[in-house]
Amino acid sequence: MIRNIFIIFFVAISISCVAQNSQKEDSTVLKKIYNASLLKGKSYEWLDYLSNQIGGRLSGSINAQKAVEWAEKELKKLELDRVKLQSVMVPKWTRGVTEFAYIETEPGNTTNVPICALGGSVPTPIGGIKAPVIEVKSLDELKDIEADKIKGKIIFYNRPMQADLINTFEAYGGCVDQRYSGAAEAAKYGAVGVIVRSMNLRLDDLPHTGAMSYGNLKDKDKIPAAAISTNGADLLSSMLTLNPDIKFHINMNCRTWKDVKSYNVIGEIKGSTYPNEYMIVGGHLDSWDLGDGAHDDGAGVVQSMEVLRLFKEIGYKPKRSIRVVLFMNEENGLRGGKKYAKVAREKGENHIFALESDAGGFTPRGFSFDCSDANFNQVQSWKTLFEPYLIHQFIKGGSGADISPLKKNNIVLAGLRPDSQRYFVHHHAKNDTFDAINKRELELGAATMASLVYLFDKYGVK
Amino acid sequence: MIRNIFIIFFVAISISCVAQNSQKEDSTVLKKIYNASLLKGKSYEWLDYLSNQIGGRLSGSINAQKAVEWAEKELKKLELDRVKLQSVMVPKWTRGVTEFAYIETEPGNTTNVPICALGGSVPTPIGGIKAPVIEVKSLDELKDIEADKIKGKIIFYNRPMQADLINTFEAYGGCVDQRYSGAAEAAKYGAVGVIVRSMNLRLDDLPHTGAMSYGNLKDKDKIPAAAISTNGADLLSSMLTLNPDIKFHINMNCRTWKDVKSYNVIGEIKGSTYPNEYMIVGGHLDSWDLGDGAHDDGAGVVQSMEVLRLFKEIGYKPKRSIRVVLFMNEENGLRGGKKYAKVAREKGENHIFALESDAGGFTPRGFSFDCSDANFNQVQSWKTLFEPYLIHQFIKGGSGADISPLKKNNIVLAGLRPDSQRYFVHHHAKNDTFDAINKRELELGAATMASLVYLFDKYGVK
Repeated sequence: MIRNIFIIFFVAISISCVAQNSQKEDSTVLKKIYNASLLKGKSYEWLDYLSNQIGGRLSGSINAQKAVEWAEKELKKLELDRVKLQSVMVPKWTRGVTEFAYIETEPGNTTNVPICALGGSVPTPIGGIKAPVIEVKSLDELKDIEADKIKGKIIFYNRPMQADLINTFEAYGGCVDQRYSGAAEAAKYGAVGVIVRSMNLRLDDLPHTGAMSYGNLKDKDKIPAAAISTNGADLLSSMLTLNPDIKFHINMNCRTWKDVKSYNVIGEIKGSTYPNEYMIVGGHLDSWDLGDGAHDDGAGVVQSMEVLRLFKEIGYKPKRSIRVVLFMNEENGLRGGKKYAKVAREKGENHIFALESDAGGFTPRGFSFDCSDANFNQVQSWKTLFEPYLIHQFIKGGSGADISPLKKNNIVLAGLRPDSQRYFVHHHAKNDTFDAINKRELELGAATMASLVYLFDKYGVK
Repeated sequence: MIRNIFIIFFVAISISCVAQNSQKEDSTVLKKIYNASLLKGKSYEWLDYLSNQIGGRLSGSINAQKAVEWAEKELKKLELDRVKLQSVMVPKWTRGVTEFAYIETEPGNTTNVPICALGGSVPTPIGGIKAPVIEVKSLDELKDIEADKIKGKIIFYNRPMQADLINTFEAYGGCVDQRYSGAAEAAKYGAVGVIVRSMNLRLDDLPHTGAMSYGNLKDKDKIPAAAISTNGADLLSSMLTLNPDIKFHINMNCRTWKDVKSYNVIGEIKGSTYPNEYMIVGGHLDSWDLGDGAHDDGAGVVQSMEVLRLFKEIGYKPKRSIRVVLFMNEENGLRGGKKYAKVAREKGENHIFALESDAGGFTPRGFSFDCSDANFNQVQSWKTLFEPYLIHQFIKGGSGADISPLKKNNIVLAGLRPDSQRYFVHHHAKNDTFDAINKRELELGAATMASLVYLFDKYGVK
């Protein structure tokens, strides 16, 4: 009995020592990663180039192609084991000459308001459209209005983002149906156009674009759809209260072209022990056209590139194969994400982990995970390692649009969760620009991602 | 025996139910507080006025007086039980005409660099000073140089903030001795002036001012001291490497005047049950003169005012007396903080809790506490209440300069801890302005403070 107790005691001590040493080693590696990112990081310099020298890069544009070539060139400089382009056909939509809109209280008496076409919208006829306006707060509210009252009108969706939600992405989720499906719904009842309050928690003069869908409407039934700035929306709403007969004029010149060829950009470090287990880290290379896409998703692109560079920088050789994937066409089609997953399935590549950064380059707070309980428990056990970096949020939830097509059993999908308070000030608008990026916040995000990849590389998935 | 077990069981259940109900009630109150701040907050509007209509408000300036009058007026509108001014004599230092400096490689060949006088510095003689430069990285390094080499020279302190520290205040703490004591030390060895690398983690062209002290130097021995922008510091350092004989010219026109009368502004809600137990919440009303002091510490001022307004807004009547104290002269003297504590002691007022916000209006992350273990344990037990608001940092540490003179046994001193990554981009520089404030971040900070005050009001201190 006493012998048995000794053995149990000895084994317990041994396990405890191994665990402690392992914890110490991990904490040393994390410190190296953070130091390398904060002291010798490349992410900020890369983002400066991508934002200021290339700029907005909507799928199918010359800038998107420039971004592909730039990313390929930069990844090649890192001396990875492989850098390749993966071709994918993408939609091409152009804004055309700058849109404009005004409110007309009586002929000749007009007030300009800032608008922008939603991505994928049809144009107005030449000379624009002018029609009375019906304001609603939701798609449901529209259904309660008699169809003949809607006919010939412009529908104005004006439900604001809910300011009392702490996670601004939740507030976005609660509003974005107006933008995405508003035109398809309104067209069914004979509306001639749609304007949507910008998805922005701040009152300002910038319209925010974004994807929309006409569902299965025929081409002839499609109606133009635009976003209006939050100040513009409040003004229009007030004016409608004073005089329901005011008219709204919209002029848009946007156009959808034939699909064109573009690329996902992929870089790889081959795993030393399990080369056939793939871990990917990514963001999307395309952006909307109004700003330079620094936060959405230039930040995610350069942070993902930085993960592989940081491993090189600190001399860490991963056991599993690690890929950076810079996806094309997240904003208006997700073609890059779908293509990557399709090819991975066809090749029978065993993807065990995917991490996306697509929520802005702000101070990182944690991750959300789409994975099994066993893997989530494993993540929880790493929490203390992240404490010195003030990374505290490890929750279950969505990961990222581009990596979502990889979903299957036994894969861990994760999304970086930066502080969300400022994100929708910039999202899809003219002010999503490099000057809104803080170098340290961006670098902390890259290091936080690299740390999680390191831990999954070391311990694998359950 | 069975009867005893029943009793124990019953008591345990009762205690558990009470705790649960209490937890539920607290979580409801916190939600009310956050909603009121985010949906009907006044802090942003107040800060807009303080920053843009009043502006930089250094102690003893007309703007500082305007700020006192504005704060008193706004607090009176809140219908508190008492609003009063507490007079205090403060130092008055003025910058005079804008400073300038240049590097001279040979007579007539000069390069301008951005500088600003440190607060409290003596001026240069009319026409400025021009002298060769010795670069050092620390006060200690200065001691290793022979005194006759220092005589007649300008000492250039160029130790940068350490970028790998996650908490930027720690990096600030590791550098600020150069600014505070650099001139006093250099003067001892016969230096004629001092320039100090700005306390800024970013490379840019803005010099950051801040307090300095001549220690016990006689007036005739005091030498002028200026901050140089980080880019300017790097340029000067490079030029010194190329040519150690270059000269540096500084021209400053600053001046210290006689002390003048100013005020702390105090508002109070009288406690319903324990009116003689005081809890205070505050920030400092004065700011440096270069920017408009929106982050330092306009944010703390309006958040503290908002705490009392939020209680009124949600109809919460505190059991203990709660005061907002807007301190004068934190930046260059702490006279307001010292005066408040002195009067409190003289009157025998029992202060049990004090909370300061003086680390910028960024996303709140938690609090640091200077208190007993018993009280710190109580705070830890409230952690889950703050989780929905992503408030996760409850650590021991410093509180705030203004409230530190209140330190005694059985008082809880606390400081709001916002995200620190962007703070030193703005701190004491021209770009500490209202446009760098995010409305939601400011409001979350106010609600977080009000929540902590509510909990201490309800449960008291140990």
